Amino acid sequence: MKIAVCPGSFDPVTNGHLDIIARSSKMFDKVIVAVLRNSSKNSLFTIEERVELLKSTCAQYENVEVDSFSGLLIDFLKLKEANFIVKGLRAVSDFEYEMQMALMNSKLAPEIETIFLMTSNKYSFISSSLIKEVIKLGGDISGLVPAQAEEELIKRFNIGG
Amino acid sequence: MKIAVCPGSFDPVTNGHLDIIARSSKMFDKVIVAVLRNSSKNSLFTIEERVELLKSTCAQYENVEVDSFSGLLIDFLKLKEANFIVKGLRAVSDFEYEMQMALMNSKLAPEIETIFLMTSNKYSFISSSLIKEVIKLGGDISGLVPAQAEEELIKRFNIGG
Amino acid sequence: MKIAVCPGSFDPVTNGHLDIIARSSKMFDKVIVAVLRNSSKNSLFTIEERVELLKSTCAQYENVEVDSFSGLLIDFLKLKEANFIVKGLRAVSDFEYEMQMALMNSKLAPEIETIFLMTSNKYSFISSSLIKEVIKLGGDISGLVPAQAEEELIKRFNIGG
Amino acid sequence: MKIAVCPGSFDPVTNGHLDIIARSSKMFDKVIVAVLRNSSKNSLFTIEERVELLKSTCAQYENVEVDSFSGLLIDFLKLKEANFIVKGLRAVSDFEYEMQMALMNSKLAPEIETIFLMTSNKYSFISSSLIKEVIKLGGDISGLVPAQAEEELIKRFNIGG
Amino acid sequence: MKIAVCPGSFDPVTNGHLDIIARSSKMFDKVIVAVLRNSSKNSLFTIEERVELLKSTCAQYENVEVDSFSGLLIDFLKLKEANFIVKGLRAVSDFEYEMQMALMNSKLAPEIETIFLMTSNKYSFISSSLIKEVIKLGGDISGLVPAQAEEELIKRFNIGG
Amino acid sequence: MKIAVCPGSFDPVTNGHLDIIARSSKMFDKVIVAVLRNSSKNSLFTIEERVELLKSTCAQYENVEVDSFSGLLIDFLKLKEANFIVKGLRAVSDFEYEMQMALMNSKLAPEIETIFLMTSNKYSFISSSLIKEVIKLGGDISGLVPAQAEEELIKRFNIGG
Repeated sequence: MKIAVCPGSFDPVTNGHLDIIARSSKMFDKVIVAVLRNSSKNSLFTIEERVELLKSTCAQYENVEVDSFSGLLIDFLKLKEANFIVKGLRAVSDFEYEMQMALMNSKLAPEIETIFLMTSNKYSFISSSLIKEVIKLGGDISGLVPAQAEEELIKRFNIGG
Repeated sequence: MKIAVCPGSFDPVTNGHLDIIARSSKMFDKVIVAVLRNSSKNSLFTIEERVELLKSTCAQYENVEVDSFSGLLIDFLKLKEANFIVKGLRAVSDFEYEMQMALMNSKLAPEIETIFLMTSNKYSFISSSLIKEVIKLGGDISGLVPAQAEEELIKRFNIGG
Repeated sequence: MKIAVCPGSFDPVTNGHLDIIARSSKMFDKVIVAVLRNSSKNSLFTIEERVELLKSTCAQYENVEVDSFSGLLIDFLKLKEANFIVKGLRAVSDFEYEMQMALMNSKLAPEIETIFLMTSNKYSFISSSLIKEVIKLGGDISGLVPAQAEEELIKRFNIGG
Repeated sequence: MKIAVCPGSFDPVTNGHLDIIARSSKMFDKVIVAVLRNSSKNSLFTIEERVELLKSTCAQYENVEVDSFSGLLIDFLKLKEANFIVKGLRAVSDFEYEMQMALMNSKLAPEIETIFLMTSNKYSFISSSLIKEVIKLGGDISGLVPAQAEEELIKRFNIGG
Repeated sequence: MKIAVCPGSFDPVTNGHLDIIARSSKMFDKVIVAVLRNSSKNSLFTIEERVELLKSTCAQYENVEVDSFSGLLIDFLKLKEANFIVKGLRAVSDFEYEMQMALMNSKLAPEIETIFLMTSNKYSFISSSLIKEVIKLGGDISGLVPAQAEEELIKRFNIGG
Repeated sequence: MKIAVCPGSFDPVTNGHLDIIARSSKMFDKVIVAVLRNSSKNSLFTIEERVELLKSTCAQYENVEVDSFSGLLIDFLKLKEANFIVKGLRAVSDFEYEMQMALMNSKLAPEIETIFLMTSNKYSFISSSLIKEVIKLGGDISGLVPAQAEEELIKRFNIGG
C-alpha cells in the first residue's frame, strides 16, 4: 500500500491546500493530511480546530485521513508506514525552501521520497497568512478557502456582527 | 483624472522611494504617497514623523500628496478615487511577493491596476531597514536618503553628539 | 497626451498579450501596439499578418493603434511622441531580462519610462512559442488566443483539413 | 494500475536521469521512459541508440519500460493509459519552465498529473549537454553517466584512439 | 599580505562553513573567521562558545584565526587591515541578499572587496538553523557538522541522557 | 604565486568586464584574461581582434596578461599553473549557470577554485550581446565599453560614415 503524508500548518486550510490534497488522493492508496504541532508559531486556530476543519472539508475524499504530529516529519511517516511526502509549489521562493527540506529529509531517511505538485494557477497567490490578513482588514475571501473555513474566519474576526 | 497610490512603510523614506515617487508623478495626474499604519511592525519613526518627512521631501512635486492609511489598500484607493497602485521592483524576491499581492488585489478589486517600475540601478541595494542598520552602527548613508531623513536619522541615533 | 507603446513579436497575439493591451488602454490616452521587425528570428506569420491580426483583435479598444517598427525601440517612441513602454511580467526569468532592457533603455533615453504589469494568473503559462508548439502537435488552444488567431493557426497547420 | 511517463531527450542518459527513473519506479506500478522524437534539435545519438542505452541501463528495474514518442506528450500518455508525468527539478530555471509546461498540460488534459522530484544534490550540476561538452574537450565524466553511456560517448568522440 | 574575513553567526559552525573556511585559507595569507555579536538574534550558543568551537575545528588551518566583532563589518576589516570579505552562496535567495550587502559595503568602503564561493553541493542544504531544528527533534546530524559541534549540540539538547 | 584566470568571450570587452578584471588584479599576483576559442558561436570580432582590444584596455594593470584558449578551461589553468577562476555575477540567471559550471569544474579538478565577484551595480545591465544589438541599431554606447572598443564597434557598423 502506498501511503503519502501532506504536512502543513493549515491555519486555516485554503482552496490551494484542498487542490493539492485532492490531486494527491488520486495518486496514493491513502493520504494523511498532517497538521504540524509547532508551539513557537503564532496561530489563529488551535491544532484541534484545524484538524476539525480539515476533516469536514476532506470528508469527500475516501482515502484521506487527517492527523497532527510533533517531532520530525520523517518519524511521523515511519510511525504511519508512509513513504511519500507531498508538497505544493507556488513560486521560486517555495522551491528553494522545499528543495532544502527535501534534501535534508532524504539525508535523514533515504527511503522516504518527497514529491512536488505545482499549485494550480488559479490558487497561486493564496496562502493562509495572506487570507488571514485580508479578512482581518475586511476583504472578501470567498472562493479562496472552503466554505467551512470562511465561516470560521468570519466568526473569529466578528465580521458583520 | 488618473490617480495613483504609492504605498509603503517609509521608515524612513529613501532615495530609492523618492526615485519611484518622482517617476510616478510624471505618469499620473495625482500621486498619493500612502504610509501604512501597521501596528504590529517595529518602527523607528512614528506615522506622523514619516508623513512629515515625506511631505518635506516631496514638496518639489506639485501633484504629489502624502497621507496614511490603515485597513485594506484597495479600500484606501476607493476612498481616494484612485485606480492605480505603483510599486518599485528591486530584485527577484520583491517580484514574487509583489506578484502575489497584485494578484490578490486584482481578485479583491479587478478595476484597480498595480503597475511596477524597476528601481534605478544606483538605488537597487537600498532599503529602509538596511539604512537603519548601517547608521545605527556608525556607517555613512549620505546619498542614500534625502537630506532631511539623514538629519533625522543622525539625531535619532545621537551620532556625533 | 500620455502615449504608451506595447512592443513585442506577437507571432501570433495571445490572450495574455490582449490582457496587457486592454489594461494599458485604461491607463494611457493612446496605446500603440508595436510589432518588432526582427529579421533574424524565425517567424510563423509575416509582420503584415501579425499587424492585421492585432488590428482585428484590438478593434474593440478605441485608443489602441497597431504599428510595426525596426531599429531601437526608444527611437520608435520618440517618433511617435510616446513616453512609456508597457511590458507584461509572467515569471522570474521575464523579470531579469526585462530589468536589463529597462535599465539599458533608461540609459539611452532617460525621459522614457518602462512600466510593468503582472500577467493575469490565468494566462501566466501562455507564450506565442508554446501555443505554436501545441497546435503544431494537434493540441487544443481554444481560450488561449483570440478567435481570429486560432483560426489562422488552424489554417496554417492545415488541421482538420 | 498507476502508470507514469518520464519524458526527455536522454542524449544520452545521465546518472541524474537514472536517479529520477529509479525513484519513480518505487512510486508507480509501471514507469515508461519516453524519448522525445524532436526533429529540430541537434542530437548526438539517434533515437534508436538512445532507446537502446536506456534499455540496457534500466534493465535492473523490473517495472520500467523504454519507448519513444512524437506529438503531444499527453497524447502519448493517453495511448499508454498513463496518468502521471514525472520530472526532475535541479534549479530555479528548471522550475519556471516546468511549471509552464505542467500548467499547459493540465489545461490540455486535466486528468493527467505532473509530479516533480528534486534531483539528488550529487547530480544537481549534470545535464546531457554539459556532459557532451566536457567529454568532447577531453574531460573525465566517470561517475556522471552510466558505464554504457560513457563507453558510447568515448567511442563517439574517438578518445584515446 | 592579503587578509580575508569570513563573517557569520556560526551558531554553531557547520561542515558547510568549514568547507568555505578551508577553501578561503588556500586563497589568502590570513583568514579571520569573525563571529557577529548581534544582540537581537536569539542564539543557542554564546559568542564565547561559538568562538571556542570555531577555534577547535579550525585549528588544523595554520593561517586561520577566530575572532568576534560588533559594529559595521567594514570597520572590523579596517581594524584588522583586511581587504576581503568571503561568503558562501548556496541558493538564489542567498545570492540576492548577499548582492545587496556587497553593494552596500562597496558604497561604504570601496577598497574592500567581497568575494563569493559556491557552497559544495554536498553541503548545499545545510544551515545552522536547520541543524538545530533537526537535532532538537531527535534527528541524526552526523556528517553535517564537525564532531565537536555535534557533541555540544547533543549535550545542549540532553539527547540520549 | 597566486594566479587567476578570467575566462570569457569578450566579443567585445565591456566596462563590466574591465571592472571585474581590475578588481581581480588587486586580489591575485597575476591575472590571465582568457578568450575562449569557441568555433560554434557567431562572433563579431575574431579571437585575435578580441585579444588585441583586451591587451590595449588592460595595459594599465601591470599584473594582467591576455591570452586565448580552446579545450577545457581547467586544462588551460593547469597549463598556466593557475589555481583560481574569477567570474562576475550580475543576476540570478548568471548565478545558476555559473553554479553548475563551478560544481562541474570542481568535480573535474578539485584543486581549482572558482570565485565570484558581484558586478558593480552601474554595469549590471551590460552584456556584450546587448551592446552589439544597441550599436547596430544606432544607439549610443559611450560609457558602457572602453573607448577602444567603442571605436572598433563604430567602424564595424560603419556608423556616421
